[in-house]
Amino acid sequence: MDKPYVVGMDIGGTNSVFGIVDARGNILSVDSIKTQAYSLFGDYVAAVAAKLLPMIDAAGGITKIKGMGIGASNGNYYTGNIEHSANLPWKGIVPLAADFEKAIGVPVTVTNDANAAAIGEMTYGAARGMKNFIEITLGTGVGSGIVVNGQLVYGHDGFAGELGHVISRRQDGRQCGCGRRGCLETYCSATGVARTAKEIVEYTDEPSLLRDIEGDITSKDVYDAAMRGDKAAQDVFTFTGTILGEALADFIAFSAPEAIILFGGLTKAGDLIMKPTLEAMEANVLSIWKGKTKLLVSELEDADAAVLGASALAWG
Amino acid sequence: MDKPYVVGMDIGGTNSVFGIVDARGNILSVDSIKTQAYSLFGDYVAAVAAKLLPMIDAAGGITKIKGMGIGASNGNYYTGNIEHSANLPWKGIVPLAADFEKAIGVPVTVTNDANAAAIGEMTYGAARGMKNFIEITLGTGVGSGIVVNGQLVYGHDGFAGELGHVISRRQDGRQCGCGRRGCLETYCSATGVARTAKEIVEYTDEPSLLRDIEGDITSKDVYDAAMRGDKAAQDVFTFTGTILGEALADFIAFSAPEAIILFGGLTKAGDLIMKPTLEAMEANVLSIWKGKTKLLVSELEDADAAVLGASALAWG
Repeated sequence: MDKPYVVGMDIGGTNSVFGIVDARGNILSVDSIKTQAYSLFGDYVAAVAAKLLPMIDAAGGITKIKGMGIGASNGNYYTGNIEHSANLPWKGIVPLAADFEKAIGVPVTVTNDANAAAIGEMTYGAARGMKNFIEITLGTGVGSGIVVNGQLVYGHDGFAGELGHVISRRQDGRQCGCGRRGCLETYCSATGVARTAKEIVEYTDEPSLLRDIEGDITSKDVYDAAMRGDKAAQDVFTFTGTILGEALADFIAFSAPEAIILFGGLTKAGDLIMKPTLEAMEANVLSIWKGKTKLLVSELEDADAAVLGASALAWG
Repeated sequence: MDKPYVVGMDIGGTNSVFGIVDARGNILSVDSIKTQAYSLFGDYVAAVAAKLLPMIDAAGGITKIKGMGIGASNGNYYTGNIEHSANLPWKGIVPLAADFEKAIGVPVTVTNDANAAAIGEMTYGAARGMKNFIEITLGTGVGSGIVVNGQLVYGHDGFAGELGHVISRRQDGRQCGCGRRGCLETYCSATGVARTAKEIVEYTDEPSLLRDIEGDITSKDVYDAAMRGDKAAQDVFTFTGTILGEALADFIAFSAPEAIILFGGLTKAGDLIMKPTLEAMEANVLSIWKGKTKLLVSELEDADAAVLGASALAWG
């Protein structure tokens, strides 16, 4: 192969991680910078290039690089821009692909982080060989990447797959950062888990280890308590999985995927979250799909997943 | 063009309609038989062929026919079979494509009726030139055909696009024919409209023309009363449109369509249904899509739509 490598970069709210990846998903080298340290986008691009260009040289030079894939919140596949991201330092429309093509010298493809995870899963992970699946990312928020007929669903404008913002509770739903109420992500993100735990502590008298936590309860606290047998903490995961499974049943009615693949920190809770999710999905799905849709955990390793996912964009 | 025509057939629970169609969507000839008159599938195929083969001869013979498209409830694009339809006389797995290929002598493509409507819309109707849209059929039930990247979404198993069975009301939802509760179709089908009207008559004291109707209230009765200024009947459409618009807002989050196109009898109610639907869709959609997604009425003429939709399959 003339060009055996691609560059993957994940632009997170805190860190920007970039690496050089081969066709099997091996990461040759990886490095990172602090996203928030660069209020000017031009400085940010220069800082990435200053670290990335020597890595490319070490891999054999720019002629070995087929392209660069970038995952960023509100990254738009069609335009190559970041458009009005809420958690990155650059406001408005940021010409992400254009500026990195100039700085690095290879074609650049952009998408959002959840779509990048889905492409990574299809290229290197649990969705290898699948033509129809949905990747759900359970992190600070809930994101999704939808694959239909082997293609990422970008929709008319490049922003398809915002399944964290379907409405799970139309009555008395939780306030979401998007301005609406009852979004799936207010319940099934790491933040949502912490929120459920706080509600149980505040609104019930149920005894729980969660009552002993000083400061804000985190999803990690809930996990630790649940693993120590705390009933209230286990109930938090059951509640979370039930709402998630109900939503997944509706997603199946949309695109009839072969599998739904869960990705991100919450999946570390294992059966605590997977069991109620699967139960609720099976209980709520239309009968023609009962027992048919696989519920899987991502096979992308956590530390590498974002870079791998973004890099996979560059093969296409 | 060597083969200027296709055959379209719609297998409904009552009538089976078939016709010969050209590339612009003109119907050269059309005929029908009663679906329920044939308890044996073999007799049914023979009855269609006895009428259809002379129509083909009149159009210049079998060499002029590129193929045949059939829309049928539970028709599976991948297998060419009807699989466990609830409203057709033949039970289990029916080899629809295979038997009609033998009887007629052209390639046969099968899908369900809502997918056929979507393909018809894309080929001859309001979705010409669109690569991403959702067709919602509002009839006895609620069906859908989803187009992504210019392709119908069939999913892993051929049954994708059952949007009439996403859950609109998770608490105290109406019983659905599918065995579950709260499905969109229990509210937004013609049957759902009639059901809402009956609930208002039974559970409120609101004065209404609907109280004077003898026997079961139909969606047509509700329309007639609403057009005569009946407040309760108008409220039925507002309620229906509101639930539909809420659901459409979630569908937009999935595939970011350029348009959602409503098809079927209920759209005859015009502004009575379109206005509350659009209002609820806009009020509930994620902000990045506000004012962006078109809500349209099908441009396929009602009498011809089923045959046209099915015929469009055969060009592909």
